[in-house]
Amino acid sequence: MTDFQAMLRADLRGGSPYGAPQLDVPVAVNTNESSHPVPHDVVEAIAAAVTRVAPGLNRYPDREFVELRTALAGYLSVTTGCEIDREQVWAGNGSNEVLQHLVQAFGGPGRIALGFTPSYSMHPIISRGVGTTWVDGLRDASPDRFDIDTDLAVAQVREHDPHVVFLCSPNNPTGTALRLETVTAVYDAAPRAIVVVDEAYAEFARPGTPSALTLLPGRDRLVVTRTMSKAFAFAGVRLGYLAADPQLTELLRLVRLPYHLSSVTQAVALAALTHARTMLSMVEQIKASRDALVQGCTRLGLDPVPSDANFVLVGGFADARASWQHLLDRGVLVRDVGLPHHLRITAGTMQETQSVLDALALTLDQDGKGTA
Amino acid sequence: MTDFQAMLRADLRGGSPYGAPQLDVPVAVNTNESSHPVPHDVVEAIAAAVTRVAPGLNRYPDREFVELRTALAGYLSVTTGCEIDREQVWAGNGSNEVLQHLVQAFGGPGRIALGFTPSYSMHPIISRGVGTTWVDGLRDASPDRFDIDTDLAVAQVREHDPHVVFLCSPNNPTGTALRLETVTAVYDAAPRAIVVVDEAYAEFARPGTPSALTLLPGRDRLVVTRTMSKAFAFAGVRLGYLAADPQLTELLRLVRLPYHLSSVTQAVALAALTHARTMLSMVEQIKASRDALVQGCTRLGLDPVPSDANFVLVGGFADARASWQHLLDRGVLVRDVGLPHHLRITAGTMQETQSVLDALALTLDQDGKGTA
Repeated sequence: MTDFQAMLRADLRGGSPYGAPQLDVPVAVNTNESSHPVPHDVVEAIAAAVTRVAPGLNRYPDREFVELRTALAGYLSVTTGCEIDREQVWAGNGSNEVLQHLVQAFGGPGRIALGFTPSYSMHPIISRGVGTTWVDGLRDASPDRFDIDTDLAVAQVREHDPHVVFLCSPNNPTGTALRLETVTAVYDAAPRAIVVVDEAYAEFARPGTPSALTLLPGRDRLVVTRTMSKAFAFAGVRLGYLAADPQLTELLRLVRLPYHLSSVTQAVALAALTHARTMLSMVEQIKASRDALVQGCTRLGLDPVPSDANFVLVGGFADARASWQHLLDRGVLVRDVGLPHHLRITAGTMQETQSVLDALALTLDQDGKGTA
Repeated sequence: MTDFQAMLRADLRGGSPYGAPQLDVPVAVNTNESSHPVPHDVVEAIAAAVTRVAPGLNRYPDREFVELRTALAGYLSVTTGCEIDREQVWAGNGSNEVLQHLVQAFGGPGRIALGFTPSYSMHPIISRGVGTTWVDGLRDASPDRFDIDTDLAVAQVREHDPHVVFLCSPNNPTGTALRLETVTAVYDAAPRAIVVVDEAYAEFARPGTPSALTLLPGRDRLVVTRTMSKAFAFAGVRLGYLAADPQLTELLRLVRLPYHLSSVTQAVALAALTHARTMLSMVEQIKASRDALVQGCTRLGLDPVPSDANFVLVGGFADARASWQHLLDRGVLVRDVGLPHHLRITAGTMQETQSVLDALALTLDQDGKGTA
């Protein structure tokens, strides 16, 4: 019998796979999906698009996914007011793959990636997965403060001189957007780094929160990543993308696996992008549901972090793991992100948010509130 | 202006992206696709499957793709007579991604992957892409012999003591299948290695060529990779897979990007697998077309390598690059794989093979034959 752990790459030994539980529960608010099904007319457009490409599936896809890049550039331009060209756009099977392309090209063995913890937990996993050294930066000197302290961030960037810096705005799992001054300060402090701003949740930001896309002109090492999984309500299709300098995106072709985006993925994403208004129509409702979740948690004596996303990090649990289980016992699946006294809760439909608040009230009666 | 080459990982600098030209020509026989469109009833099944999953695309896919793994295990079991269980099966967006998972888990920085050149050119690219040191092994001491010399292979494995060994059977771009004795000899000589047999073209093998799947029992470090791109005529869907020991496939979950297979990919692949007989119905025709291509090339005084695949490596060109261009001028796109005096030609429809042979005859009149 082979000892596979001994054969495994040393830094992977004893690890467990990433992954939130996929459980069949009445209220699944643990992975920041949209709770709103794809509308009927978009379903029809998707089916028609697949029917068109299906006879030709014996052939490889367009390796350069030109139509899709054009549509994504158009989407970004229209929704943010920034002029984004298709040569600036790159895409992959989920933003995870796009992020992997970035660290494969600009990180890798003997190189350093720096992020500010807690943030999207795939940033270190993807970086290490391709041999990059990960540095866990501090967001703030005080461990229960989740905003990034710009001076502290700049000092850490100067200290570690990383090859790739990850920022995340709005930040997952804490929910709050970055000020652009933080992005530019980090960018200026890291003269040899690719600076990635992960904007997976940007469409949910509160009014007056500009995208880092506005910073692209004149900053050719800046990369803004996006996804169709969240506001676009298309998690099942796995389409993530980025905008950056065309010279930078060109280099990602050195590490992408050829034909990485299937003809079906390209066709389905294109069909949905032509219905962007419909796909985004639930965003305002989700933001209202998020605000109701924040207010409801406050009323229950919990401590929600202000959110620009479709989820809320809620503090104030005596024992987050116990409360997670008690919520699950009541049919509500939330996310234990490993932060003491905190749980992350997706804003689903208004009815789901009410169910969450009802379950929280019962759970708090059972567990008591925390001291965090 | 940033010097992106200086920021790029050192071993990638000055490289050019992998990729055959995607040109719109009458006879495209350069990427070993099937020339036969997906039949109408399968197109309908695919459209129906996508219509069923489309409303739920707001949710992430089944991260474990249980139904798809079950169907792939069934496909392998039925077509090869080997008993393959779904826990042995792993899949990705093309066999490239599956191969990447293998080298990420078992190769990586400071580790060695060994293959026998010429073989599938993505093996070194994928290995290096995640920081693995690549060793280019010799197939035979004589450079114009493309079969693997088992003793030479064993000697090279013993010398380099690799962590991952790549075999390819039938071999791309040379076309011939390996004898199983070579696989077992390499396996026994590499006690700490994962031994990968890339069987992308296995369904085209001539009668009496057993799959390395028959070797899996009792060899828990052996991995056999397959794809739906070739015999299954489904290159546009990007579905590659492997069979191996369940303990080994379990460890690939440490490096896969979560939800890497979209709900649409899973649904479309499943729909096609339920029509496996139809999807494979062209295989015998393609083999006949390949055999006609071999015979026709021989008649033209060229030197085709015996083939178990849906392509033929043809030697005997005075200047392969010039002949490649002259064939393209006649509307026939073949593959220059960088082997002097050789071109690789896919067996398309019988009509396409006739067009290839006609164009070859004219090209040889123009260029003359080689001395290889």
